[in-house]
Amino acid sequence: QIDSARLWDTIHETAKFGATPKGGVRRLTLGPEDKQVRDWFRKSCEAAGLEVHVDTLGSMFALRKGRDMSKPPIGLGSHLDTQPTGGKFDGVLGTLAALEVVRTLNDAGIETEMPICIVNWTNEEGSRFAPAMMASAAYVGDFTTDDILSRRDAEGVTVGEALDSIGYRGEKPVGTQKFSNFVELHIEQGPILEAEGKTIGVVDSGQGVLWYDGKITGFESHAGSTPMPLRRDALATLSEIVLAMESIAKKRGPNAVGTIGEAVIAKPSRNVIPGEIAFTMDCRSSDAAIMAALDKDLRAAISEIAARRKVEVALDLVWHKPPTHFDAKLVDAVEHAAKALGYSHRRITSGAGHDACNLNTIMPTAMVFVPCKDGVSHNELEDATQADCTAGANVLMHTVLALAGV
Amino acid sequence: QIDSARLWDTIHETAKFGATPKGGVRRLTLGPEDKQVRDWFRKSCEAAGLEVHVDTLGSMFALRKGRDMSKPPIGLGSHLDTQPTGGKFDGVLGTLAALEVVRTLNDAGIETEMPICIVNWTNEEGSRFAPAMMASAAYVGDFTTDDILSRRDAEGVTVGEALDSIGYRGEKPVGTQKFSNFVELHIEQGPILEAEGKTIGVVDSGQGVLWYDGKITGFESHAGSTPMPLRRDALATLSEIVLAMESIAKKRGPNAVGTIGEAVIAKPSRNVIPGEIAFTMDCRSSDAAIMAALDKDLRAAISEIAARRKVEVALDLVWHKPPTHFDAKLVDAVEHAAKALGYSHRRITSGAGHDACNLNTIMPTAMVFVPCKDGVSHNELEDATQADCTAGANVLMHTVLALAGV
Ligand SMILES: NC(=O)NCCC(=O)O
Ligand SMILES: NC(=O)NCCC(=O)O
Repeated sequence: QIDSARLWDTIHETAKFGATPKGGVRRLTLGPEDKQVRDWFRKSCEAAGLEVHVDTLGSMFALRKGRDMSKPPIGLGSHLDTQPTGGKFDGVLGTLAALEVVRTLNDAGIETEMPICIVNWTNEEGSRFAPAMMASAAYVGDFTTDDILSRRDAEGVTVGEALDSIGYRGEKPVGTQKFSNFVELHIEQGPILEAEGKTIGVVDSGQGVLWYDGKITGFESHAGSTPMPLRRDALATLSEIVLAMESIAKKRGPNAVGTIGEAVIAKPSRNVIPGEIAFTMDCRSSDAAIMAALDKDLRAAISEIAARRKVEVALDLVWHKPPTHFDAKLVDAVEHAAKALGYSHRRITSGAGHDACNLNTIMPTAMVFVPCKDGVSHNELEDATQADCTAGANVLMHTVLALAGV
Repeated sequence: QIDSARLWDTIHETAKFGATPKGGVRRLTLGPEDKQVRDWFRKSCEAAGLEVHVDTLGSMFALRKGRDMSKPPIGLGSHLDTQPTGGKFDGVLGTLAALEVVRTLNDAGIETEMPICIVNWTNEEGSRFAPAMMASAAYVGDFTTDDILSRRDAEGVTVGEALDSIGYRGEKPVGTQKFSNFVELHIEQGPILEAEGKTIGVVDSGQGVLWYDGKITGFESHAGSTPMPLRRDALATLSEIVLAMESIAKKRGPNAVGTIGEAVIAKPSRNVIPGEIAFTMDCRSSDAAIMAALDKDLRAAISEIAARRKVEVALDLVWHKPPTHFDAKLVDAVEHAAKALGYSHRRITSGAGHDACNLNTIMPTAMVFVPCKDGVSHNELEDATQADCTAGANVLMHTVLALAGV
């Protein structure tokens, strides 16, 4: 059993880096607060006897030797970046529980057969730079390192510049650190476990993701003197798109969601009909056929709205991540650990994307979920109980021990 | 007849101050470009023999003496500030045509019985600071000078600070410069004159204006893992409000319009359901009863939407300007001048607000409209012909001469 109080303290210790007044965390990837938590993480891993190295996209790897160094380590970990108004647990739990697993093994003097390696993946959130899970996507070869290094945030800063500005552009080429398999612990970020009173989610699949960049071009004109029928209003157009997306997702539901999270009117003014709006859209399903249907229905709805309102709407698919089906043997291993430890559990689909979803495309991978309060995440009020976090860390440890061999 | 080429050159000379790549003008009130055009205007008025003074809200008054200085002057003019993506004519035509009237009288050696006074009103547009027509509203006593001085722009800069930063906080208390009556020339900013092939709009009334500040408070949560039925999406709420406002305005139309020109998601992120949005709304009608109905219908629709979506919507009325009915005798004088000069004309309602609408509450006031291309205004593509601008300036001059006496 891991040290529950130490894990809990560690979570709250890192929550200082980017703490918000409402009790959340704002620690955008590769910003100054991310540097603070990375420095802390490196020091803590080194203090636990781990050897830390950083790859050229800033992902941090902390290695604990095993008896048999001929095989790649078992990977475990998550991410330490957060949303603009994020919580204390999303990503953090999985990374710090991995550290707690190592600390517990150290305290108990347990040596494993295979090495194990904790990872802090760069930019899991995807809020400052797109796509989300950027570094693990490059790790599995979905993008080249150079492509990712040149991605820009809203202020025009590239990933490469951001890495240099905090001193986290490492030496190791992306993909150098191999793994035998990977296990990630995370809060569920949805309401199912809590509603059903289950402690552990044995994640067997993950939703696919469609990310779009959209732009509406209508016509700016005077709010007082332009008759309603002559308007080409970009905001009214966006409004129809938002509601169409919502009803399309509901129609295809429950296995579909759609969100417009960003929408910016160019040069807004109270008495000017909006002429130009940039927006982003996020649609998901765990069923590839539903994802294709969402894309088709959305494009048809948008065409109809644009034509009727005499505006132009551009919609570019900037990221397409197919649904994930985790490795059956590893999923069984997680389930076995939960059962052995006596925790209530159920199989579950991840609504959110995770680095584990990327890693699963090239190695056996699985995930462990624990409940979070009201299913709320990407919110400063995100919360989870010490007991559930402890249970998740124990399942993580036992799964890793089963894989690594004692 | 005024000097058509000189008027046209003057318009294009001032269009340099804040010129945009698309041929428009961005000259936000009390910003650096506004200072440039103000300095130019002061110099040009002084060169025309006028005595310039500035009031404590920055409005500029340029006086031409009359034979009988015992009566307040005839006022004429408009404004030189523009929208963020404004055109070359909105406000500018009325101010520079007033200057052209004086230059023409000077050239012809015409002395008037009563003095005349050109005005450049501060912040007519209302885009940087609310409300629109701010200085003329204070002039007629709708707001105190101190209230207006403390209004803030989106960056938190007050009117007072902005005035000081460009050196245009004048000496004269607001309201010191009296007028016998006031005439303002403006482009129509709507499509009617052009559609009917009329050169002059004899403006007999103006729409009333309702300006609202709104705020939607939903709940931020994860775009991937939050089921559609559990969302409290601020952007979906805004979307319903936009479309409800549009259909309410259409239902009460043609004598009603409604616009949401500004909407800002707090801390936006691609994969976060928007939790908070601030927006502004602008509703107008020339019928006070319709204005009241718009307000009632909107509030009812918003209550229903907010309750159904389990979000909070605050809606504050920040400006209420009743409909304007211009002075019958002055309207006749404008019509008489148009007829005498042989221009086609019609009575018209102003869709936009104007400083003249404020002045009309305390003195006989009227307005002259000329057509603009496709009825487009508050857009960089705003355009008007030299012939129409010239016609408008001639009607302005003849109206002023009839009022001032030769
Ligand atoms: N787990 C998590 O919140 N990931 C962020 C990427 C996404 O799913 O939007
Ligand atoms: N004339 C004009 O565009 N005024 C701005 C104020 C308004 O009507 O919105």
